[in-house]
Amino acid sequence: MNEHQRLLDYRQSLNNIDGALIAMLAERFKITQEIGRYKAQVGLPPADPAREQTQVSRMRALAEDADLDPEFSEKFLRFVIDEVIHHHERIAAEEI
Amino acid sequence: MNEHQRLLDYRQSLNNIDGALIAMLAERFKITQEIGRYKAQVGLPPADPAREQTQVSRMRALAEDADLDPEFSEKFLRFVIDEVIHHHERIAAEEI
Repeated sequence: MNEHQRLLDYRQSLNNIDGALIAMLAERFKITQEIGRYKAQVGLPPADPAREQTQVSRMRALAEDADLDPEFSEKFLRFVIDEVIHHHERIAAEEI
Repeated sequence: MNEHQRLLDYRQSLNNIDGALIAMLAERFKITQEIGRYKAQVGLPPADPAREQTQVSRMRALAEDADLDPEFSEKFLRFVIDEVIHHHERIAAEEI
């Protein structure tokens, strides 16, 4: 296999994985938007530090099993949660 | 369905999706580490701005199809690429 082809093959795999990641993230935000609407409706705060801590521990354990840097998995979860809280705040503001 | 159960059901779905995300990210970094080793071996720079621009456009289009905020998909890709470049720099440093 020539080396240029090798890089193209790797990139094709990355493209496939990125498609799966985007689909999973879209589904994830659909669910968190439902949670956001529910929280706004019953007056719960957008953020939930205890739940976040459970999620962080879970992600780190999953990452270790998958041979992924647990630090990165935690940063990733915080990155996603920041976006979720931003959505929830927007939903709560719309309810007022 | 009582409301507490509703939140627990949503969270179960989030846990399932997070498991899939972690698995996909672990696979993605395996591939980018292969790319990093290859680039270090043939002396290519860790970052590739033209490829990144193509990836950004592709992610935004995928996000629109999936009803995900394209801005978020771009931020997400940059977040992942920053980690990849950090890995590549580490690999390149080890080669020296």
